[in-house]
Amino acid sequence: MSISLKQVEEHNSRQSCWVIIRNKVYDVTEFLPEHPGGAKIILKYAGKDATDAFEPIHPPDALDKNLPPEKHLGDLESSAAQDLDNARLNRKKTADEVRIEREQAKKPPLSHILNLKDMEQVARKILPYKSLAYFASATDDEITTHENARAYSRFFFHPRILRRLSNCDASTTILGYKSPIPVFVSGAALAKLGHPDGEANITRGAGQTGLIQMVSSNASLSFAEIAAARVTPDQVLVFQLYKHKDNDVALKRIREVEQLGYKAIFLTVDAPFPGNRERDARSAWELEEIELAAEQGEEKSTAELPLTKKKLEDVEEDVDTGGTASSYLANDDVDMTWDTTIPWLRSVTRLPILLKGVQSVEDAVLAAEAGVDGILLSNHGGRQMPYALPPLEVLYRIRQQRPDLFDKMEIYVDGGVTRGSDVLKAVCLGARAVGLGRPFLYAQSAYGAEGVVKVIRILEREIYMCMRLLGARTVDDLVPQMVERVDWSAVGPKL
Amino acid sequence: MSISLKQVEEHNSRQSCWVIIRNKVYDVTEFLPEHPGGAKIILKYAGKDATDAFEPIHPPDALDKNLPPEKHLGDLESSAAQDLDNARLNRKKTADEVRIEREQAKKPPLSHILNLKDMEQVARKILPYKSLAYFASATDDEITTHENARAYSRFFFHPRILRRLSNCDASTTILGYKSPIPVFVSGAALAKLGHPDGEANITRGAGQTGLIQMVSSNASLSFAEIAAARVTPDQVLVFQLYKHKDNDVALKRIREVEQLGYKAIFLTVDAPFPGNRERDARSAWELEEIELAAEQGEEKSTAELPLTKKKLEDVEEDVDTGGTASSYLANDDVDMTWDTTIPWLRSVTRLPILLKGVQSVEDAVLAAEAGVDGILLSNHGGRQMPYALPPLEVLYRIRQQRPDLFDKMEIYVDGGVTRGSDVLKAVCLGARAVGLGRPFLYAQSAYGAEGVVKVIRILEREIYMCMRLLGARTVDDLVPQMVERVDWSAVGPKL
Amino acid sequence: MSISLKQVEEHNSRQSCWVIIRNKVYDVTEFLPEHPGGAKIILKYAGKDATDAFEPIHPPDALDKNLPPEKHLGDLESSAAQDLDNARLNRKKTADEVRIEREQAKKPPLSHILNLKDMEQVARKILPYKSLAYFASATDDEITTHENARAYSRFFFHPRILRRLSNCDASTTILGYKSPIPVFVSGAALAKLGHPDGEANITRGAGQTGLIQMVSSNASLSFAEIAAARVTPDQVLVFQLYKHKDNDVALKRIREVEQLGYKAIFLTVDAPFPGNRERDARSAWELEEIELAAEQGEEKSTAELPLTKKKLEDVEEDVDTGGTASSYLANDDVDMTWDTTIPWLRSVTRLPILLKGVQSVEDAVLAAEAGVDGILLSNHGGRQMPYALPPLEVLYRIRQQRPDLFDKMEIYVDGGVTRGSDVLKAVCLGARAVGLGRPFLYAQSAYGAEGVVKVIRILEREIYMCMRLLGARTVDDLVPQMVERVDWSAVGPKL
Amino acid sequence: MSISLKQVEEHNSRQSCWVIIRNKVYDVTEFLPEHPGGAKIILKYAGKDATDAFEPIHPPDALDKNLPPEKHLGDLESSAAQDLDNARLNRKKTADEVRIEREQAKKPPLSHILNLKDMEQVARKILPYKSLAYFASATDDEITTHENARAYSRFFFHPRILRRLSNCDASTTILGYKSPIPVFVSGAALAKLGHPDGEANITRGAGQTGLIQMVSSNASLSFAEIAAARVTPDQVLVFQLYKHKDNDVALKRIREVEQLGYKAIFLTVDAPFPGNRERDARSAWELEEIELAAEQGEEKSTAELPLTKKKLEDVEEDVDTGGTASSYLANDDVDMTWDTTIPWLRSVTRLPILLKGVQSVEDAVLAAEAGVDGILLSNHGGRQMPYALPPLEVLYRIRQQRPDLFDKMEIYVDGGVTRGSDVLKAVCLGARAVGLGRPFLYAQSAYGAEGVVKVIRILEREIYMCMRLLGARTVDDLVPQMVERVDWSAVGPKL
Repeated sequence: MSISLKQVEEHNSRQSCWVIIRNKVYDVTEFLPEHPGGAKIILKYAGKDATDAFEPIHPPDALDKNLPPEKHLGDLESSAAQDLDNARLNRKKTADEVRIEREQAKKPPLSHILNLKDMEQVARKILPYKSLAYFASATDDEITTHENARAYSRFFFHPRILRRLSNCDASTTILGYKSPIPVFVSGAALAKLGHPDGEANITRGAGQTGLIQMVSSNASLSFAEIAAARVTPDQVLVFQLYKHKDNDVALKRIREVEQLGYKAIFLTVDAPFPGNRERDARSAWELEEIELAAEQGEEKSTAELPLTKKKLEDVEEDVDTGGTASSYLANDDVDMTWDTTIPWLRSVTRLPILLKGVQSVEDAVLAAEAGVDGILLSNHGGRQMPYALPPLEVLYRIRQQRPDLFDKMEIYVDGGVTRGSDVLKAVCLGARAVGLGRPFLYAQSAYGAEGVVKVIRILEREIYMCMRLLGARTVDDLVPQMVERVDWSAVGPKL
Repeated sequence: MSISLKQVEEHNSRQSCWVIIRNKVYDVTEFLPEHPGGAKIILKYAGKDATDAFEPIHPPDALDKNLPPEKHLGDLESSAAQDLDNARLNRKKTADEVRIEREQAKKPPLSHILNLKDMEQVARKILPYKSLAYFASATDDEITTHENARAYSRFFFHPRILRRLSNCDASTTILGYKSPIPVFVSGAALAKLGHPDGEANITRGAGQTGLIQMVSSNASLSFAEIAAARVTPDQVLVFQLYKHKDNDVALKRIREVEQLGYKAIFLTVDAPFPGNRERDARSAWELEEIELAAEQGEEKSTAELPLTKKKLEDVEEDVDTGGTASSYLANDDVDMTWDTTIPWLRSVTRLPILLKGVQSVEDAVLAAEAGVDGILLSNHGGRQMPYALPPLEVLYRIRQQRPDLFDKMEIYVDGGVTRGSDVLKAVCLGARAVGLGRPFLYAQSAYGAEGVVKVIRILEREIYMCMRLLGARTVDDLVPQMVERVDWSAVGPKL
Repeated sequence: MSISLKQVEEHNSRQSCWVIIRNKVYDVTEFLPEHPGGAKIILKYAGKDATDAFEPIHPPDALDKNLPPEKHLGDLESSAAQDLDNARLNRKKTADEVRIEREQAKKPPLSHILNLKDMEQVARKILPYKSLAYFASATDDEITTHENARAYSRFFFHPRILRRLSNCDASTTILGYKSPIPVFVSGAALAKLGHPDGEANITRGAGQTGLIQMVSSNASLSFAEIAAARVTPDQVLVFQLYKHKDNDVALKRIREVEQLGYKAIFLTVDAPFPGNRERDARSAWELEEIELAAEQGEEKSTAELPLTKKKLEDVEEDVDTGGTASSYLANDDVDMTWDTTIPWLRSVTRLPILLKGVQSVEDAVLAAEAGVDGILLSNHGGRQMPYALPPLEVLYRIRQQRPDLFDKMEIYVDGGVTRGSDVLKAVCLGARAVGLGRPFLYAQSAYGAEGVVKVIRILEREIYMCMRLLGARTVDDLVPQMVERVDWSAVGPKL
Repeated sequence: MSISLKQVEEHNSRQSCWVIIRNKVYDVTEFLPEHPGGAKIILKYAGKDATDAFEPIHPPDALDKNLPPEKHLGDLESSAAQDLDNARLNRKKTADEVRIEREQAKKPPLSHILNLKDMEQVARKILPYKSLAYFASATDDEITTHENARAYSRFFFHPRILRRLSNCDASTTILGYKSPIPVFVSGAALAKLGHPDGEANITRGAGQTGLIQMVSSNASLSFAEIAAARVTPDQVLVFQLYKHKDNDVALKRIREVEQLGYKAIFLTVDAPFPGNRERDARSAWELEEIELAAEQGEEKSTAELPLTKKKLEDVEEDVDTGGTASSYLANDDVDMTWDTTIPWLRSVTRLPILLKGVQSVEDAVLAAEAGVDGILLSNHGGRQMPYALPPLEVLYRIRQQRPDLFDKMEIYVDGGVTRGSDVLKAVCLGARAVGLGRPFLYAQSAYGAEGVVKVIRILEREIYMCMRLLGARTVDDLVPQMVERVDWSAVGPKL
């Protein structure tokens, strides 16, 4: 049964809300209150085609998973569908798209990317304005993100000399799985915002190099698509769970990834509510300004657009975070506890259970007592709680106050890592491995899977250099005595 | 009996000084030495119309309160009054007024104001030059104000995880009155410099959101006008008392606010003499330069005007602070003491008595011993004593050295707060609530009462976000263990 | 007997060196090795007129004191003298002089000078290039000077409230002499480089305000001229002695100032050799560049002239510090000791004896043991030993380690003071008074004696404001508990 | 037997690789895997003339030492040789060469060089782009190099007064050899990159002033050429050994320098692998960009060239560090140990044995236990291990934790020294002498041997000034009590 555009257009309200996605019509009225990103953003497309807004931030199975079959109303009339396709095809390029094409043409060859900052610099140039805003944004004034990185600059090395270094080996194990370097891909969502292949780029790059990848509940590909992108069948994926408040829904999600062969569950514990990501919130109306200016023949840079007057409809509306990419990330279950959630998880799965987002020594102790298999010290890359202590500082406090915890579970850190030397600082202090998120989003945006491989190769080269110059032949030689937290701040790019 | 302009003009000296205000003539000769802002500024208008200088910084009842009836000489002759009115009407716009009109036209919609810095940025653009100088100025090199804010950047959080967060509630009580968040409006004077409705904007905004407002003795509206602006009869106002050296005068002021229903007296103790506000002092002659330049077709920005040659009459005159908005704020009683002033206050009123401007642990102890109901740790927003310790640092020292004080009286802080996370840092350390002053002056200047509401909503949103991400369901869950004063300075906008 | 120009010109070598000063001829051959500024600079004028180089940096009695009568050869032939006078009169203005005239015309009125930084800013504009280089220069990278000032920004106040403040009195005594504020003029030489009246400006300004002035051995006026500039006969001058290695010469100098009524001897102990003042050394050839550029119609700013190619004679010559204003300051006696110099001084004069330039706690202790009347903690304004501890930090260490010293002698500090709050920090820590040098050089350069008065009035106003806001009615109320050395660095202009 | 160009061109692969150097033909096929700088860079010239790439970074005896005689195939045909010579002669100047000529013409006279920063500034202007990249580059983000220098800014002096200073003497001994100041030339390689006379400039300058010079294994002149440049036969040279993994090869090198009269062996222990010098790696393709831009009439500054698109062949190739000057420095023996290497060295030579590159207190202790004659605390000028503790900080920790070590061996530091005051800080803390490397490379690049002398004279002048102003007559008077590590960071050029 095909549906006319006119019919769709009639269902344009909260009372009855239909949308078109890839020329199919869906009734999302009942789903509105369930939508993790809020009802508002959907209502913007009520009675209209929502394909362009939907695609980059949803996996293809999102509709199947979230809408019962009876809400899949059917195909749009073919002439209307044709019209929409044509409109999309003939659409004039936006100013942002024109800029990106120009930057893509100037992109340096991969061989000129010497470090992770180079990679980020390229990505910042070729990313769509809104995608960059989502990837780069952090909570409040973004200080927390900067502090995560800056924390590393306070730790200096005591390199050791005259030690045998041939056959240097940086490999380790993570949850029993071999890793060529003490590094893994930390959960980072919505990769399709940067590249049409999205998270699959990361999976391919990790597979080629043997790294373990954590896949976010909010990936823009389906968990199955990501699993299918594995280079070898035994490539290790682990799952970052945003737990739904309804245990049954959460369990369904766990079962799915178990069946796909994911090897561990990282329960997200630092994001019961979304952080305040202003860069992200601003990007929509800033982009509008850019396009308006382009129509008048000007080119506007971001820097000129801090606080602008909305030119179109002057309807005053309070900005909530609805409609931004960030808003999609809210975790539903705001009442998780040590006493209920961890035991429940243990009862439903045999996979190792880890906590992602531990931010204090006190909670590291509780985690050990709760018997989890590991914890990831993380403040979500500075995107959630402003002024959360940098993960490296939490690690350092565990080393000083409760070194026994390192024997009870695996402890990882992420946030702020840009160099092999950063990785080794964390490992010296007791971290089993170090996660990186944004660098992989940038790399896949700039160069696809090859960019991901490049980032890993750079880290590998830097880690080997530093191990040798530290006098460490294996990761077991990386000991706390090799690092010192100095009482001055280092100068330079980290600032 | 109507008075001719000629008559007025004859009384143009310290010996006999008449001024015209709103077409009425006053003999202020005997009042000259009493004027809190000094005689000089009045003498500038001796024998002339002083309306434009008088209005924005005096409440309408100022003349009634301060001049005996026999000095209200009568109406100006109607033809002269007409002439003055016409002159005012036909007056050419100043360069500053032209600039403000242009900026007002570009003002962003309220929905684009995401944080308190955004609000300040708008206000800085649309405020008259001299008003901004008064609002923004601080003592000496303005370091004290910056340090107030920077102090917050040294406190980081230990967020806690896996705690029940539904029904999160940020409300508290202040002196027994309910407040939806641990925030109140701190005393901030001369709001009419930014908006014709002045302090009433703040009262309306506070009323709509349930916040408690402290009203300054130096408000530019009368205490009665402010009281009349309340949204509901039980809306809570408290009074910031600048005590007159004459107890009878002071008592009259107290009785007035008691009768108007004000709920507490905050005695100002950090301002026995005015601070050195150079930005304020300079603004008059800088503005003169701007106008002169405009006549010659140039537009001058403030930045170009640090030290300029006075072009008009080249009379050398020593700058005292007379004539600036700041000079209005001097408190008369410079001999207040613990032994005399507090007991006297107790003896004349049943309202709670609090001290505004405690700047050391030692005085916090004395305040508790004196039995006051509360203290506001404050250095007057950095406008009085240069290099006074930031209030948050005083709070931190009380927490470390005398935590028992928190049980003896309510302790508040103000100065430097721009984020919900700042509020929570103070509350974790023991503050009952946190006051903000300048942000409300800026907000009402930029958007009137709606701007005030917006600022409160932003703080509310940020406080809720942070409580949830900290793992706190009520303000009682905000404990000292959640914050750590780190030994490095944070980077970023706070600097 | 009059001497022809030709005759003079024949004596143009180290073997026989005559120079003309104010149309008189002098044989300085034997004086060459004695010249504190080195022989080289004199030889530059051998057989020529040296008046312009001589005058601004020598007191008028310099020739009488240093050259025996038989070396005063007589007058230059009147026609030649006439020619020299004419040449001087008709000399084309240099580019630097043209610039100064332009800046003088734009100089703001004194009433617009609100603080010492304003004053310095004006002086920097109207000073001759080389004079500014001499006044502003400091040793090596000038870090020591900046650190002197920055030290003050690490000390914050604990202001006290509710104290009687009427009749506030900032006066104190220095060596028993009354001073209206705890401030004195520290020794600062060569004031004529900035203003034709030189040190007399400072004497007049200090006299009008009651301040004590220290006069340098290297003043550009004679000690008698300075004494003659006193406003009242009992105006207090003290003498900064650079001790000559020959005790007899030194004694002659002491006797001279005793007879002129100077009240104390401050023996300079931080300058046995001149510091490395590169700004000063560079100024000569930079100025040459400026003039050359001006001839070609360009205006060169200092900023563009860091390292320039000498364009004129390309004779390679090693730069020693000869020929710069700084080089004049070398103290001759490099073998002064505690055991010999102090007892000798005591044996020859009844004046109080103080040490100027104590830079360590250890030497403060030795000074007390040696029984001197006082010490001035000073590193010569950062002009001598690079990275000498800031005087305020030395004062702080004395307060912590040897507070008993404050009872044994008067202790002063100088260096880096720009605000009344700085003065009070030092006094709270135990300093009897605080010296300022450069600010007075700048003030007299910019506005003569009136500038000096202005600087003192500004300090007075700021000191009174801060005493009242600190809760101190007299200097005895300024106690160590009122200041705290914080572990962060303040932001702002001090940096 | 002369060889035709055509013949050479046929041997252009890894299987058979011939190159022309100075019109002689060499078969380097078997040497490819041995080349310290990697095979790749040689293969770039396979079958071609390699003279221009070879000469500036190899000593003339490099071919004799490393290629067996049978691989010296003979002379190039004279007509081809002529052609090559002509081509070289008629070669158009590169943009970089044009720039250098222009800068050379503007070079200031030596007398205007007042400090080591001035010298570096000149060198930075006149050095070829790639040479500067090699000299200036450091590992990773170059933070380690900056921190080396910045460490000095945390140490302040307690200068002492009233001490006899005549006959001040800064001389000391180093390994028993007299040195006029506690300074030596630290190993710094490839001086020919900056000046055709290369290391000989340094030898001549050191000889004229009596300084001891350390010669690197990687000098661009032969050890014999350097020895021949000595000013007197007893001028002291010491040898910095990069130990070859084959003891016999290493021994041959030691014997050579023994016979040439070198006085000590400094075994390099901080460079088992090359650091990550990105500036160096980037310089090749950046230079290419500069030349391309020049062809199109633009002048490109370095600053504009951070990440550029390679324009020529777009062959993707992974950048290893092959082909950069840095890559030449890899030390072969990666399995040196305390137990094997030091005893072996002792067994083969009677020269004093020292370790260059000790970076921790722990290894300083081991070195003393191993009985070496001395250690040089160094992190290779920040070119090897990123975030290695600054050498001055290691020295400071030895002073605090193990002051007994200063009695057991001589301890030196290098890295970050730019002032005489820096030298004295290290000597006060216990260093026997202080090494400088880069400053001499810059000096000889800018002014040849005269530049080297100038640098030494500047240091000498600054050291004497500081000793006198510190109150030290000999180096024995320089004691730990004279320096204090402050808890704030100094401002200024050091940052």
